[in-house]
Amino acid sequence: MEKYSFLDDYSEGCQANILEAMQSTNMAQQSAYGNDDYSNLARRLIRKHLDGDFPIYFVAGGTLANIIIMSSTLKSHEAVIAADSGHIVVRETGAIEATGHKIITVPSDDGKLTPESIEHTLADNAHFPHMAKPRLVYISNATETGTVYAKSELSALSVICKSNDLLLLLDGARLGAALTANISDLTLKDIAELTDIFWIGGTKAGALIGEAIVITNPKLAIEFDFHIKQRGALLAKGRLLGLQFTELFKDDLFFKNSRHANLMAQKLSAGLIKNGHRLIAETQSNQIFAIMPNDLLAKLNKRFSFYVWRKYNETDSVIRLVTSWATDENKVSEFIAAI
Amino acid sequence: MEKYSFLDDYSEGCQANILEAMQSTNMAQQSAYGNDDYSNLARRLIRKHLDGDFPIYFVAGGTLANIIIMSSTLKSHEAVIAADSGHIVVRETGAIEATGHKIITVPSDDGKLTPESIEHTLADNAHFPHMAKPRLVYISNATETGTVYAKSELSALSVICKSNDLLLLLDGARLGAALTANISDLTLKDIAELTDIFWIGGTKAGALIGEAIVITNPKLAIEFDFHIKQRGALLAKGRLLGLQFTELFKDDLFFKNSRHANLMAQKLSAGLIKNGHRLIAETQSNQIFAIMPNDLLAKLNKRFSFYVWRKYNETDSVIRLVTSWATDENKVSEFIAAI
Amino acid sequence: MEKYSFLDDYSEGCQANILEAMQSTNMAQQSAYGNDDYSNLARRLIRKHLDGDFPIYFVAGGTLANIIIMSSTLKSHEAVIAADSGHIVVRETGAIEATGHKIITVPSDDGKLTPESIEHTLADNAHFPHMAKPRLVYISNATETGTVYAKSELSALSVICKSNDLLLLLDGARLGAALTANISDLTLKDIAELTDIFWIGGTKAGALIGEAIVITNPKLAIEFDFHIKQRGALLAKGRLLGLQFTELFKDDLFFKNSRHANLMAQKLSAGLIKNGHRLIAETQSNQIFAIMPNDLLAKLNKRFSFYVWRKYNETDSVIRLVTSWATDENKVSEFIAAI
Amino acid sequence: MEKYSFLDDYSEGCQANILEAMQSTNMAQQSAYGNDDYSNLARRLIRKHLDGDFPIYFVAGGTLANIIIMSSTLKSHEAVIAADSGHIVVRETGAIEATGHKIITVPSDDGKLTPESIEHTLADNAHFPHMAKPRLVYISNATETGTVYAKSELSALSVICKSNDLLLLLDGARLGAALTANISDLTLKDIAELTDIFWIGGTKAGALIGEAIVITNPKLAIEFDFHIKQRGALLAKGRLLGLQFTELFKDDLFFKNSRHANLMAQKLSAGLIKNGHRLIAETQSNQIFAIMPNDLLAKLNKRFSFYVWRKYNETDSVIRLVTSWATDENKVSEFIAAI
Repeated sequence: MEKYSFLDDYSEGCQANILEAMQSTNMAQQSAYGNDDYSNLARRLIRKHLDGDFPIYFVAGGTLANIIIMSSTLKSHEAVIAADSGHIVVRETGAIEATGHKIITVPSDDGKLTPESIEHTLADNAHFPHMAKPRLVYISNATETGTVYAKSELSALSVICKSNDLLLLLDGARLGAALTANISDLTLKDIAELTDIFWIGGTKAGALIGEAIVITNPKLAIEFDFHIKQRGALLAKGRLLGLQFTELFKDDLFFKNSRHANLMAQKLSAGLIKNGHRLIAETQSNQIFAIMPNDLLAKLNKRFSFYVWRKYNETDSVIRLVTSWATDENKVSEFIAAI
Repeated sequence: MEKYSFLDDYSEGCQANILEAMQSTNMAQQSAYGNDDYSNLARRLIRKHLDGDFPIYFVAGGTLANIIIMSSTLKSHEAVIAADSGHIVVRETGAIEATGHKIITVPSDDGKLTPESIEHTLADNAHFPHMAKPRLVYISNATETGTVYAKSELSALSVICKSNDLLLLLDGARLGAALTANISDLTLKDIAELTDIFWIGGTKAGALIGEAIVITNPKLAIEFDFHIKQRGALLAKGRLLGLQFTELFKDDLFFKNSRHANLMAQKLSAGLIKNGHRLIAETQSNQIFAIMPNDLLAKLNKRFSFYVWRKYNETDSVIRLVTSWATDENKVSEFIAAI
Repeated sequence: MEKYSFLDDYSEGCQANILEAMQSTNMAQQSAYGNDDYSNLARRLIRKHLDGDFPIYFVAGGTLANIIIMSSTLKSHEAVIAADSGHIVVRETGAIEATGHKIITVPSDDGKLTPESIEHTLADNAHFPHMAKPRLVYISNATETGTVYAKSELSALSVICKSNDLLLLLDGARLGAALTANISDLTLKDIAELTDIFWIGGTKAGALIGEAIVITNPKLAIEFDFHIKQRGALLAKGRLLGLQFTELFKDDLFFKNSRHANLMAQKLSAGLIKNGHRLIAETQSNQIFAIMPNDLLAKLNKRFSFYVWRKYNETDSVIRLVTSWATDENKVSEFIAAI
Repeated sequence: MEKYSFLDDYSEGCQANILEAMQSTNMAQQSAYGNDDYSNLARRLIRKHLDGDFPIYFVAGGTLANIIIMSSTLKSHEAVIAADSGHIVVRETGAIEATGHKIITVPSDDGKLTPESIEHTLADNAHFPHMAKPRLVYISNATETGTVYAKSELSALSVICKSNDLLLLLDGARLGAALTANISDLTLKDIAELTDIFWIGGTKAGALIGEAIVITNPKLAIEFDFHIKQRGALLAKGRLLGLQFTELFKDDLFFKNSRHANLMAQKLSAGLIKNGHRLIAETQSNQIFAIMPNDLLAKLNKRFSFYVWRKYNETDSVIRLVTSWATDENKVSEFIAAI
């Protein structure tokens, strides 16, 4: 691959110290199925950021996390509320419906839900029992368009959920980028306090693989492990997942990696603006959506990979640039120089 | 019940001749599970309106029909396209999702789909395999808001479906009212030719119970009976369903009943307009949506039942009036006199 | 049909008074979806046989009842325990598995479960979370082979279920025949006390259609109606189901019908034995399993229909004869005369 | 961990060269979702052992492989035939049923299916459409009890499946141990020829994670990738899976590892017999089932971990010992010395 890729935040392998840890522990015999020493240590390290001894499960990917959470949490007549841009709506091949549950989609410009949009959805979905019962609210932070929730926003969602007997699930595929965003005032402790269940994305934050599901509502923890197994997520060598999170949380690498991704995005973003290009929205985390002339894009495309998001007008397109823990600052400079 | 009800088209029992047929055949021993003489006769009578020896199955209700059709037709990664007002979207408690299939909803003002809206949906749902694959288009005729498809409209949908390898399902809960609507130029034969599978609603057309599923695409007929049984729709005394359709189709009662319903709706509609009330849409079949003052509604509500659809403004509401095969013309006159 | 059929207990229509009731109430406008006067009256009439104000729902058939009960009661990791002859195991086309639940089958010679067989099954299915968790015990009374439970047997099952946190479901497709069997000492009140949920079969006891689900464990009643709708069982004209049970329970016709079926079975059974034929098991309810010579069967088959259950040896077969509320005593005499 | 474990074949990490390959490729930018260079190379390396350009997909674990295969292959009324000891029957928490499919279990003493047991099952499951339709036969090689199929046995299964329109799936969680067993005369090429779909287990053969699904029946390959995604198995960093199989198949390490496991099992097995202990079955692959006195087990248990499979009699138990690519021959010697 000669071109440098800004396509996504999972083009490289992982943080070097993860590989080192895998090397040094490789021949140690360990219990299977997530009961190994490294998974247990990872749980302790993550809990240091939280205010409770919450159950934590590690699974291989985000869709799997969402499948397991929906399947273990909901009865068959219960539905999910999600923004129409939500990952479970448009990028999981109907995985949630395949577990039997309806997703009620809510139009959203910035990828976020609000108390108003939830209340509106509840009012529109109240003709019981002819309608599925809304029971769980799904949000992503950062959202699929790179925006991040403020503490006040998440608190307001938490209040509306509690007062309507709705569970709140936060998909944290890019939670690192969200929490370390300049405009964010949220902590992991806040997330744990304000949601019923959430997951911390490792794959996009420097791990090879793995997401950590944190169950803060004790009712949701009951027999959760059966669902991990039933959906095919119980790895024989759970140590692989445990080691990823041990290393990410041992020296706060998770946050450092995410900060680097955001910093690179800010640099790219600033470079674009300085060179006269417009963004379709302020860059809040590690995704940048820029409007650029097609002829320039053709040239850039010889040296860089990026995702052409959509046509903007006859001469311009919107592109998406994604940065990560692995983004090379020199390449960012080269990109800016090239525009 | 002292008030006269315009709430729905299933408040009464059934056509008198159905009860007579049930009486006269009651003690005849018959084969079970839909292999009885009456079901077979009903199939022959319905096929007289069609251009082929299509398999026909009778089931107890519309949601059951839709469940069976989706479940037998689709593989787990295949999705349904439907108008956001579709019965499967907003009045079946997530029944389709409970069979594992995603419904992709399309905004629609009049309850109909168009080639444009389908093409737009296909374009938005093409990021494979990260998105479920659209495979079946669900339409209702009459629609949930009482509109009916013209032959040209249905033909256009048929063309777009065929050219995109999409199956076309027509939910005919109120197919009688649609086909006998003044503005309709469609016949059962047309429906059979233009769709892959459709069902003829008996319950709202004078039967006690029962919908007839007609499979016009031979690929969809393979092992269909397993799904009838698996979803709990194989009645031991299938004769009950057979007799309903024998009587409805013996002397075209199905169409006569539906015409009466439409005529009553036209009369109500004309009376409303004559008395200065507005409709939110032209009355095309047996549902009327009228804007009326709340104080008048309060008075009317002492003598008539109807569904308050939604608030229109501070002083007015939109109500829904439904007529049927059983609607008493005198009561229609009384209603008009009362406004 | 010239031959007289002993094939099943659903070859005829229904008790005459049901048709009369349908006639006399036909044009009365009624609320839809099971909220009609007749359904409410039927609930009151059934509750007279019970010791509590239990929720009662009417559905069109037995497989539908089982689907709804499993789907509303179980979470996706929970399994059902059933005899290997159970209707849900061998005659419902995988309907329970289609709702996502495993059935753990227990070998049973007489169609019954015992505390020992349940305990054994629990011991064999305890490797959690690698195995589905047994949560509901399914029994039929009468069983699929015509045997009936004694009160002591059902009480023992109830005890073992309660002490192992298992729900007990009784499939009563032939509950009338079971309760009125000579050897039965159970009442509807007992059934309600000893199970968590059960259903009373109408179809095989003189109704056209319909089973009544009685929920005695209040936890199972929560939001049960959503599942009725989601599985396609919420009939618009619920009055049809309500009227069946009103008539069956108004003058204890349910029990009279069932007694007639059992009496006819006893008469057939005695006639067979008197004529030197053996039964493979004592006739306890309305099903007879007799060993008969193939050449005699060939002759009988010209005048009577029956089910050849299986080969017995080179010269003999086991046949099944079923009697019902509608069985003509003269035909029973003719059959006996013919052997 | 001071005790040496014979509990399973997944207690250690992975072959050293896999870690080396991960190191050396770590920062190379790669396409996501299994389209990376290493996955493509792994496919080519595996295909060298096969006779066709078969599609190959890598997934994280065996239950996930089985879920995806069933879900993509079967329609909802189709059932699976499996031995009652099958992994999908007793160790996957109802995962297959959770996708909606019935498993028809076949009693089996040695974990294998035979043409006779399949024919018997077909005969017992032919009352259509009241029974689910058998459509796929699931076998494991090595079986869950360590036995392995001979080529003649697999050929006979293939014939019976083809002649009954049944698909044949081979679960190869321990395929390496099976193919390198002394008594095995099967090759990967044979497996590909005789089955419709099979998977090669990496996890138990020296990989950290990963199973390779090989689709030999082209009909099963259609839109298979949607199911990989829908069930949560499409890893962003598919390179992780690709690298495992690249290394396992580059220098036939897969076979060498498996041979080592079998050799260690033979050594253990011989040592047990030499010391007067009985096996409940001949050791064919890398699992040993031995009958040993409880007092000796208590002593052994201070130095070694193993699985007590079941009680044998008052004084003896059956234990399971598992060897692997990582088994230390010195520890095997120590174990034998200790008995």
